[in-house]
Amino acid sequence: MVIVMKPSAPTAIIEKIKQKMLSLGCEVHESKGTDRTLLGLVGDTRRINPSQIEANEHVERLIRVMHPFKLASRDFHPKDTVVELDGVTIGNGSLVMMAGPCAVESEDQLMDIALNVRQLGARMLRGGAFKPRTSPYSFQGMGEEGLKLLKKAKEVTGMPVVSEAMDQENFDMVAEYVDLIQIGARNMQNFALLKQAGKSGKPILLKRGMSATVEEFLMSAEYVLAQGNPNVVLCERGIRTFETYTRNTLDLSAVPVIKELSHLPVVVDPSHGTGKWTLVEPMSKAAVAVGADGLIVEVHNQPEEALSDGSQSLKYDNFQRLMDTVQKIYAVR
Amino acid sequence: MVIVMKPSAPTAIIEKIKQKMLSLGCEVHESKGTDRTLLGLVGDTRRINPSQIEANEHVERLIRVMHPFKLASRDFHPKDTVVELDGVTIGNGSLVMMAGPCAVESEDQLMDIALNVRQLGARMLRGGAFKPRTSPYSFQGMGEEGLKLLKKAKEVTGMPVVSEAMDQENFDMVAEYVDLIQIGARNMQNFALLKQAGKSGKPILLKRGMSATVEEFLMSAEYVLAQGNPNVVLCERGIRTFETYTRNTLDLSAVPVIKELSHLPVVVDPSHGTGKWTLVEPMSKAAVAVGADGLIVEVHNQPEEALSDGSQSLKYDNFQRLMDTVQKIYAVR
Amino acid sequence: MVIVMKPSAPTAIIEKIKQKMLSLGCEVHESKGTDRTLLGLVGDTRRINPSQIEANEHVERLIRVMHPFKLASRDFHPKDTVVELDGVTIGNGSLVMMAGPCAVESEDQLMDIALNVRQLGARMLRGGAFKPRTSPYSFQGMGEEGLKLLKKAKEVTGMPVVSEAMDQENFDMVAEYVDLIQIGARNMQNFALLKQAGKSGKPILLKRGMSATVEEFLMSAEYVLAQGNPNVVLCERGIRTFETYTRNTLDLSAVPVIKELSHLPVVVDPSHGTGKWTLVEPMSKAAVAVGADGLIVEVHNQPEEALSDGSQSLKYDNFQRLMDTVQKIYAVR
Amino acid sequence: MVIVMKPSAPTAIIEKIKQKMLSLGCEVHESKGTDRTLLGLVGDTRRINPSQIEANEHVERLIRVMHPFKLASRDFHPKDTVVELDGVTIGNGSLVMMAGPCAVESEDQLMDIALNVRQLGARMLRGGAFKPRTSPYSFQGMGEEGLKLLKKAKEVTGMPVVSEAMDQENFDMVAEYVDLIQIGARNMQNFALLKQAGKSGKPILLKRGMSATVEEFLMSAEYVLAQGNPNVVLCERGIRTFETYTRNTLDLSAVPVIKELSHLPVVVDPSHGTGKWTLVEPMSKAAVAVGADGLIVEVHNQPEEALSDGSQSLKYDNFQRLMDTVQKIYAVR
Repeated sequence: MVIVMKPSAPTAIIEKIKQKMLSLGCEVHESKGTDRTLLGLVGDTRRINPSQIEANEHVERLIRVMHPFKLASRDFHPKDTVVELDGVTIGNGSLVMMAGPCAVESEDQLMDIALNVRQLGARMLRGGAFKPRTSPYSFQGMGEEGLKLLKKAKEVTGMPVVSEAMDQENFDMVAEYVDLIQIGARNMQNFALLKQAGKSGKPILLKRGMSATVEEFLMSAEYVLAQGNPNVVLCERGIRTFETYTRNTLDLSAVPVIKELSHLPVVVDPSHGTGKWTLVEPMSKAAVAVGADGLIVEVHNQPEEALSDGSQSLKYDNFQRLMDTVQKIYAVR
Repeated sequence: MVIVMKPSAPTAIIEKIKQKMLSLGCEVHESKGTDRTLLGLVGDTRRINPSQIEANEHVERLIRVMHPFKLASRDFHPKDTVVELDGVTIGNGSLVMMAGPCAVESEDQLMDIALNVRQLGARMLRGGAFKPRTSPYSFQGMGEEGLKLLKKAKEVTGMPVVSEAMDQENFDMVAEYVDLIQIGARNMQNFALLKQAGKSGKPILLKRGMSATVEEFLMSAEYVLAQGNPNVVLCERGIRTFETYTRNTLDLSAVPVIKELSHLPVVVDPSHGTGKWTLVEPMSKAAVAVGADGLIVEVHNQPEEALSDGSQSLKYDNFQRLMDTVQKIYAVR
Repeated sequence: MVIVMKPSAPTAIIEKIKQKMLSLGCEVHESKGTDRTLLGLVGDTRRINPSQIEANEHVERLIRVMHPFKLASRDFHPKDTVVELDGVTIGNGSLVMMAGPCAVESEDQLMDIALNVRQLGARMLRGGAFKPRTSPYSFQGMGEEGLKLLKKAKEVTGMPVVSEAMDQENFDMVAEYVDLIQIGARNMQNFALLKQAGKSGKPILLKRGMSATVEEFLMSAEYVLAQGNPNVVLCERGIRTFETYTRNTLDLSAVPVIKELSHLPVVVDPSHGTGKWTLVEPMSKAAVAVGADGLIVEVHNQPEEALSDGSQSLKYDNFQRLMDTVQKIYAVR
Repeated sequence: MVIVMKPSAPTAIIEKIKQKMLSLGCEVHESKGTDRTLLGLVGDTRRINPSQIEANEHVERLIRVMHPFKLASRDFHPKDTVVELDGVTIGNGSLVMMAGPCAVESEDQLMDIALNVRQLGARMLRGGAFKPRTSPYSFQGMGEEGLKLLKKAKEVTGMPVVSEAMDQENFDMVAEYVDLIQIGARNMQNFALLKQAGKSGKPILLKRGMSATVEEFLMSAEYVLAQGNPNVVLCERGIRTFETYTRNTLDLSAVPVIKELSHLPVVVDPSHGTGKWTLVEPMSKAAVAVGADGLIVEVHNQPEEALSDGSQSLKYDNFQRLMDTVQKIYAVR
């Protein structure tokens, strides 16, 4: 940490801050410039509360040097984390394709989609039973009934299942039925839910919030890890920008950035990341090329009848083409 | 709603979509241009699922004409909503000043601050008992102990209290102790929490999410209203932009925009909106000038010792100056 | 400046960097932490090229401590800059109201508007002769003919005139006719134009680019100042965010931020900042309350016939109301 | 275009607007809903000025249905545009690799880099002679001297050259020496420069502005095309978002979006798009996978001594590895 004092800061105040920092257990290195004095803090800076320092009227600003995450950091855990689901491994260099409908709508719908995506090469089944919808008047998901259908589809196809837990109340229920529990973008900073996810010990798919920096994303992973749950898979799903042609702006640079900073696996959601089915295939190819550990793609038997997100869902033939091309890119990436 | 067909759309497909729209109960007006056909949908369009239409490969895009909120809309409720707390009224044209520490830290701290802000003209006391923190290692609030202190401070000062409920588990507990329950920016789309807030019937202070459009903000209010709870106060607290000098970018235009679109009262939080105590006073003045129904301001007896957000907290003398100037502006706005 | 070395950085490399920094004329203070070494650089750091240091694979990152602007900085020029136009003074604590049409369209239009806004209290006349338009097919302005009309309007009303110079070719022509030369938001980083503006010595109204940080904004002012021209007035006119309801998001916190960092006067453009005439009055009031040195407002005799920006132009009666309320707020701010 | 009238709009006003629209030469289709009346405008809507309509106080808003670009649109020009430079073709399905230093610094530097990138597979040489720099105190480029060196490097290596023209004054000089003239991100809406580029007839590399939507990007291309110059290559180089870890957020979805909307070729700049050399290779692979027609990459013989952008420049060995992997991905994309 570096404290930048204002040009006008009295020596006595600088001295007082130095003493306080020393009393908190860190070393202080003073650099006196012509205009400003810098205080470099090294050693154990965990007990320092940056906002308190910035509250001092003689402090210009405080600059953090270290990333605030520890357990999620590659510095402290150089080896890649590998998450084992029921027969599927994420983070070991393979490419895990997860596919399925946005929302579970009926047994017929789900089974048809599950069998088809399985045959086309998907390794995991996605499907929402609880749906976070902007409007209270939109379809909110089938709830437990949907979870039961997901479990059944797993039994039939052998594919482990990923589905979202939207709140603390239903988290344990979702955990009973599914293999990988999604925490959605809107809940990325629902800290109570993150703690519960941590305590559960179950594999968690944590989606990046739509205005979350990579650092904040990793801090939310830290919440889960800090509860003793190492099974966290991150998911880049697009951030909010000024561009309105796409639903979100898929930030593919987040994949190599996270690989630099963290040991956690990263998958990409090109469906929410673009909001348009025509863009799902090209962005899937790019996501694989950039180094993603997997993709999570919306596929529907009848997008024009889908109760949710039909505009970004692939039909089977398009998903087949996507599978073909991403496998080729995966082979040479 | 307006459906824009692609130039290449076959007549049979256009006809099919028209029939489907009619079957859902709305009227369809077709406008055939040289390049594209437009289908204008009027009447009852609630049963239309826009994403299904956009899933059609012959549809270029679908344009919504109406705002998706109803109960929050001034169209359907022209008169301003007035929220009555315990002796304080928000939305009736008065200016309600809410002040207090970011977090409740101790009885001494809270009482000192409460008595001082009361004397300087605050009408309500703010203070966090449950704190949403980016880091799991930061102070997370005193919990119920903090709520008890808030209640005590209310008894002593007569000021109604506003405090955040961070999750479903603690919502009812918070509701027992406080007069106005805050749903924080990070929870603006925690739909389970919004529904609970709606069912509770208690006055809710709903903060704008840091990347939420005004429309999404009003849709979240709609979640609360749809459960039969009309007591919603909105709070603009800054949005996330590329600018890093301030913590957030306080979007003051949201105040008159919301006043146009909705009947709900709006208050402004200049502390989180800027993140710097030096900016709190000028932005408070602007917020009052633009028409806010109130302000919620962080004040601390010792910002340099504050456990949370010291850098944006005012000392008493600065809060006094702020009160003086905003009252003058309120008088002539 | 602070250089943060990677944990793996060899001592020899750290030593080499230290020697290089010393050779460039600055002092180096080393702080060895458990994980990382920090090198604090003080003294004359002007000869350091940050990007070169960051190119070193053993450097994690480089943190700048000082703002990069000098001439625009309040540190080096504590006293407020006051810009004198022909009888109007900006930056001396007064409130300068500039008003007029987006584009000069005809003599009748301009004279009618100029006389009316003069009578309602405007001190300067605005009007575009060269118009930057997103579309090549939109009205591009009257050119020199428009400038002649502006000059004539000045003669009749006595109001100094502000108008945009869009390019180097026409800069001198604009400079001949007008008192304050606007550099538009799209040209905020047109460095050739900025240099020309600097060399001209004429008063410049520099608008903030729509995605420019305050620091970049001040760096563009620095380009003008560095050529020996101290007559720079800054203009906040809204930044681009994800919000689409307004044309831009007017960042009023930029006003007190600039007042902290710089000595240059700041005016606000609520017309482009919102894009909607209904929002111009409330945001004007807020801009005055927050401390702006002036406003630049679009007024039109017939907005529904305006060749440019009719949707954000005020009619006379609305401008009159605006003048009344902003004067009241100015009196007590 | 669709005009949405306010619920309160009087019939006489609606009628008046309809008559005006008819008089401008388009057809009007009225759809009367329970709350609002929609006016669908088809036919020739070019003479309509949207802002005039929105200026009407009874109009809620105006929705454009068509994209505003014509010459850049795939609707009107379905076949891909192919730009021929001196022996290099962009847009014909091949992958054109452009590489070289950010700035030309000396003959030795440029020749060394040119020969090396040529040998490693680059087809074109990039190098800045005029550099747009945020700070007036940074190296501004070698000017004409640099252009002469670029020409010499072309003679030696056979590679056509791309370099930036920053202003109108130097455009013709740049055009004399180079094969592809870059208009930089900061000049994307420097309309005078765009017109000059159009008139020149020379191949133009137009970079996306850092806060430009794809639509605005194509409108800037339209400025060049409208002057009769069809030789426009677009370049995605990252947009500005809230994320600060990367210099910009490279929006790779812009590539397939532009391919849908337009016939113009698109290349990607992963160097400015990320600002960090470690991210250039993964994002280059993604850019090729997503369908880019080429890449423009910064390569330097000594990044730690580069006068500009060293932190994002590749050394030869890293560029070699990049060439290997992107060629493999290109082969299967």
